[in-house]
Amino acid sequence: MNTFGRNFRITTFGESHGTAVGAVIDGCPAGMPLSDNDIQPLLDRRKPGTSPLTSARKEADRIEILSGIFEGRTTGTPIAVIVRNEDKHSGDYDALREVFRPGHADFTYQAKYGIRDHRGGGRSSGRETVGRVAAGAVAMKFLAGKGITVEGRILRVHGKTTPEEIGREIISAKNAGDSVGGIAEIIVRGCPTGLGDPVFGKLDSLIAGAMMGIGAVKGVEIGDGFAAAGKFGSENNDPMTASGFASNHAGGILGGISSGQDIVVRIAVKPTPSIAKPQKTQDIHGNVVEITVGGRHDPCIVPRIIPVAEAMLALVLADAVLEQEKYRA
Amino acid sequence: MNTFGRNFRITTFGESHGTAVGAVIDGCPAGMPLSDNDIQPLLDRRKPGTSPLTSARKEADRIEILSGIFEGRTTGTPIAVIVRNEDKHSGDYDALREVFRPGHADFTYQAKYGIRDHRGGGRSSGRETVGRVAAGAVAMKFLAGKGITVEGRILRVHGKTTPEEIGREIISAKNAGDSVGGIAEIIVRGCPTGLGDPVFGKLDSLIAGAMMGIGAVKGVEIGDGFAAAGKFGSENNDPMTASGFASNHAGGILGGISSGQDIVVRIAVKPTPSIAKPQKTQDIHGNVVEITVGGRHDPCIVPRIIPVAEAMLALVLADAVLEQEKYRA
Amino acid sequence: MNTFGRNFRITTFGESHGTAVGAVIDGCPAGMPLSDNDIQPLLDRRKPGTSPLTSARKEADRIEILSGIFEGRTTGTPIAVIVRNEDKHSGDYDALREVFRPGHADFTYQAKYGIRDHRGGGRSSGRETVGRVAAGAVAMKFLAGKGITVEGRILRVHGKTTPEEIGREIISAKNAGDSVGGIAEIIVRGCPTGLGDPVFGKLDSLIAGAMMGIGAVKGVEIGDGFAAAGKFGSENNDPMTASGFASNHAGGILGGISSGQDIVVRIAVKPTPSIAKPQKTQDIHGNVVEITVGGRHDPCIVPRIIPVAEAMLALVLADAVLEQEKYRA
Amino acid sequence: MNTFGRNFRITTFGESHGTAVGAVIDGCPAGMPLSDNDIQPLLDRRKPGTSPLTSARKEADRIEILSGIFEGRTTGTPIAVIVRNEDKHSGDYDALREVFRPGHADFTYQAKYGIRDHRGGGRSSGRETVGRVAAGAVAMKFLAGKGITVEGRILRVHGKTTPEEIGREIISAKNAGDSVGGIAEIIVRGCPTGLGDPVFGKLDSLIAGAMMGIGAVKGVEIGDGFAAAGKFGSENNDPMTASGFASNHAGGILGGISSGQDIVVRIAVKPTPSIAKPQKTQDIHGNVVEITVGGRHDPCIVPRIIPVAEAMLALVLADAVLEQEKYRA
Repeated sequence: MNTFGRNFRITTFGESHGTAVGAVIDGCPAGMPLSDNDIQPLLDRRKPGTSPLTSARKEADRIEILSGIFEGRTTGTPIAVIVRNEDKHSGDYDALREVFRPGHADFTYQAKYGIRDHRGGGRSSGRETVGRVAAGAVAMKFLAGKGITVEGRILRVHGKTTPEEIGREIISAKNAGDSVGGIAEIIVRGCPTGLGDPVFGKLDSLIAGAMMGIGAVKGVEIGDGFAAAGKFGSENNDPMTASGFASNHAGGILGGISSGQDIVVRIAVKPTPSIAKPQKTQDIHGNVVEITVGGRHDPCIVPRIIPVAEAMLALVLADAVLEQEKYRA
Repeated sequence: MNTFGRNFRITTFGESHGTAVGAVIDGCPAGMPLSDNDIQPLLDRRKPGTSPLTSARKEADRIEILSGIFEGRTTGTPIAVIVRNEDKHSGDYDALREVFRPGHADFTYQAKYGIRDHRGGGRSSGRETVGRVAAGAVAMKFLAGKGITVEGRILRVHGKTTPEEIGREIISAKNAGDSVGGIAEIIVRGCPTGLGDPVFGKLDSLIAGAMMGIGAVKGVEIGDGFAAAGKFGSENNDPMTASGFASNHAGGILGGISSGQDIVVRIAVKPTPSIAKPQKTQDIHGNVVEITVGGRHDPCIVPRIIPVAEAMLALVLADAVLEQEKYRA
Repeated sequence: MNTFGRNFRITTFGESHGTAVGAVIDGCPAGMPLSDNDIQPLLDRRKPGTSPLTSARKEADRIEILSGIFEGRTTGTPIAVIVRNEDKHSGDYDALREVFRPGHADFTYQAKYGIRDHRGGGRSSGRETVGRVAAGAVAMKFLAGKGITVEGRILRVHGKTTPEEIGREIISAKNAGDSVGGIAEIIVRGCPTGLGDPVFGKLDSLIAGAMMGIGAVKGVEIGDGFAAAGKFGSENNDPMTASGFASNHAGGILGGISSGQDIVVRIAVKPTPSIAKPQKTQDIHGNVVEITVGGRHDPCIVPRIIPVAEAMLALVLADAVLEQEKYRA
Repeated sequence: MNTFGRNFRITTFGESHGTAVGAVIDGCPAGMPLSDNDIQPLLDRRKPGTSPLTSARKEADRIEILSGIFEGRTTGTPIAVIVRNEDKHSGDYDALREVFRPGHADFTYQAKYGIRDHRGGGRSSGRETVGRVAAGAVAMKFLAGKGITVEGRILRVHGKTTPEEIGREIISAKNAGDSVGGIAEIIVRGCPTGLGDPVFGKLDSLIAGAMMGIGAVKGVEIGDGFAAAGKFGSENNDPMTASGFASNHAGGILGGISSGQDIVVRIAVKPTPSIAKPQKTQDIHGNVVEITVGGRHDPCIVPRIIPVAEAMLALVLADAVLEQEKYRA
């Protein structure tokens, strides 16, 4: 299932070491100005090789729009975008052809499909998110026209919270041949009331599904989230005063529908599974082997996951906005 | 959007104080033995009025199967089930006709639809879950035939972890006119490898969406979840030995696909928003008013949410099992 | 797959001799006045037993609305409707338990599901359309608010075109233990431009699918239909003058999108397969047997198929209207 | 809506004079051998410029596979294919920028979207079918593995039935600056019993929707189709003998489910709307103008529509085969 959304629908494709990755965006309203320049900056934010904290893989990641635009505006027809894969070091992965890297999808892809593109993780690679991010950039453009913005930030990495400490923690893990996880927060501002569709299209349900569908994400919470479990109702309820809600423990969603407050989402990101430290695992013949994962990997994926999370959140919201138009007629 | 699932699809309907609540289950394979007795026990577990810890509302909640069964077996046609609403004290809610209860969906339903069945929360009531639970029971029956079980338990309530402490905490909150939240864990055992469908039908994505779509749930995590954010990759990866995975930090899912290990899910449940303590809020005219929520409410919804979470998890799994059959041909 | 539509979605359920038949209507906008009286008349039109030309089965077919209405208006939540099955003569079908009636779905249901509710054809019975018709009546109410009407009529039966000849032809077939087919035409008036969604949600594609999905329908055409195959382009194109289109060979749809002209649909209906004349067939053991189909059957289903076709066409249009709202924002 | 299918899903994109046209195929089972050579021949069959009977537009139409293949086999991940647009004479269309060509989608696209790529009809061009045909070729490969074939032929063109007469009729229409329509028949052989999903996923319903969704198709019939409307039940029913069905008036489908006989589909194709003869129409300002449609057009689209119809039928069947696997478990 490589299609996401009911109204603002995207279909993504592509593997880490295939010819190209990309997306088809279907349902974007007609008449919206759109060019490469609306998409490239978000792609650049997810790109590796831009800092000592991220993978050294160099990817130009130039977006190419194949369809759906006429004289600088959307036409209501599908917008296909691709990014060619370059700087592929497929040879780096030869040793992994028959080995299941711990913490990766190697074992489960093999179990599910009986065949697996082992080069860079194939479709399970983070590179797959290029299509999501490109599509998310289009969604953001659409949302901007409605006054809605989506913005993420790192909350903590391996327990550290300041940029300097976080940087040190990541470098330190990298030097140890290890990796670290962290927590990111994404906030939607300017969201109107009424988005979200009970009972199986609730906005928080869609958001949770979208966030947990990003590789490496192991937890999602909205508003006070897990902290709410330790509170009294009288603490957790958001009272209303003359000027509206007096607090936002709910994180902007009540009964699955947006309340007009900021939507507050946090995600837990696991440490990158690709580490240089030796690990025990099995190969496809069932033999126990020890591996050291080479290649060029991020010691902490939190910074690069933020544009992906923003993109997915933007896609959920663009879809919900279009869905909601139906009730406004 | 009141339909859930692609293969094992359910459509639910009904309001708290309407004529009936129920579900249509579409896609359950033919030839499976099924009767009321397969559904009633799970419904009974979600029923209020069975303990001093839950709402005093008395509901017989007798399941009635309207279609889809012939001589005790499913026929492959839709299974419609209903439960008539009884013991409705709609009068209890007259005072709330124009008032938005804090922490409830009253405000957002009004904003979205411009009309709202205020009696018992209408469709946003926990009573809506009767249809989900009935359908979930059918899914469990289907899963049982595959050797798969789904089982939940309370992990903690307002910080307490033993049954005795939990009971005391709930009674104490109730006596104070307040409510408390908690955390539940649901485990899937006997799950085969290969379930889940990259990249937008990942099993963890579907589970997170299903869990967050349950009223009062504010957080979801799989495996180590938020704790993974504080770990090294070398701690968090699950190595493999000759007998398979040596640990289960991943919670049974890798790359969105089941690994064959137990699937471990935890949900954060907020304190019930209906509390007797006076609260400030607005009415539909924008006036600030103070309300005390009467009626018969649960001071802690965690115990009654467990069969709902089990049901939703069973529905996700039944759907994924049917999806997976397609790849096995 | 018992769900139809993307926006105005219906899910139907029920068998000919089960407890009830019905539908859940999901996506009907909130605030629309709706009561039994909006649904019952269309149901009455599809009812058997009202003329010597139709089956003698007597069904009160009283609609019961279970949910989705509050103080006489829709609330945006699912509208569940049921009709209890009465006057079931299941015993009439005992002889058919193991026999495949020619022209019926008996053989294919058995092949597909391995189990079959033989009583009155089970789910493959025309009685299944009760749910569609009830839902279609709700769609018509919605469309009426937009100035759109859907109306069908008999064009011909077994080659005859006047009511009197048609009546005689049907009685004559009945007396001979036989049945006859015919052609019906359904016209949508008041349709706005812009409905229909290229390239896989074209309005004519959706209509064709909906019509061919009605039991006994074997052909569908739009506008000039099959006659267009014998024409020159210069004859078939609809020129435009100052007042708009000068003709309507296209039947109101161009490129899958409504042009604002009347939408003209014709369907070919096969003769009812249930006939008293002896026929050769197989039983489930592969034995060749001769059968005479007893029970109470329509010698011509065209009159009773018209409300069903109107209902399905209304559902397609209601769905397309809601879809289109998204592009108008 | 540019996605088709539930299991074997395709999403198409691209306009006549844009950068590329193509498709993403999602849900094709893993492990199937696949290369350009499986796709190119069907594309070549739909290509113009191969005979004096078709458009003179020269398109190499070389397929490029971007993803989803590893070492010559499908991996279960999306297969993206593109064909670059070449030999575009966009200038030919300058005169049509503001004019609605009769019989074309110009008027309705403008009404729906408020913006329109007028060059070669944009998305409403027959060129859009490149993506469908490429995807259909993949579906055919999948079906071939199940012993299922799909094959179309011309039945008649403007009333003529022999190849020689048909050729003369087309040339004659072309010389007169006109065009002609016709009827094609497509037959599925080797289809197993049990495909198709009551009541809204019936095989004939899906086929009718798929066929009517092809530009220029104005009618669809299955088996005896419209002729069945003129028959007695005793003539139209297919009796069974010891060796199975004795006839195939039903066209291989009973109750929406395949019977194992050949599936027989006929489509009515209108005369190409692009003709050299002068026609009256409106421009986007409402002025009545006379136009002569230049460019390079097919005087009869029936020959080139056959591979498209085969492709769509193959997609319906591949989808139904995968759907059916779920019931066989």
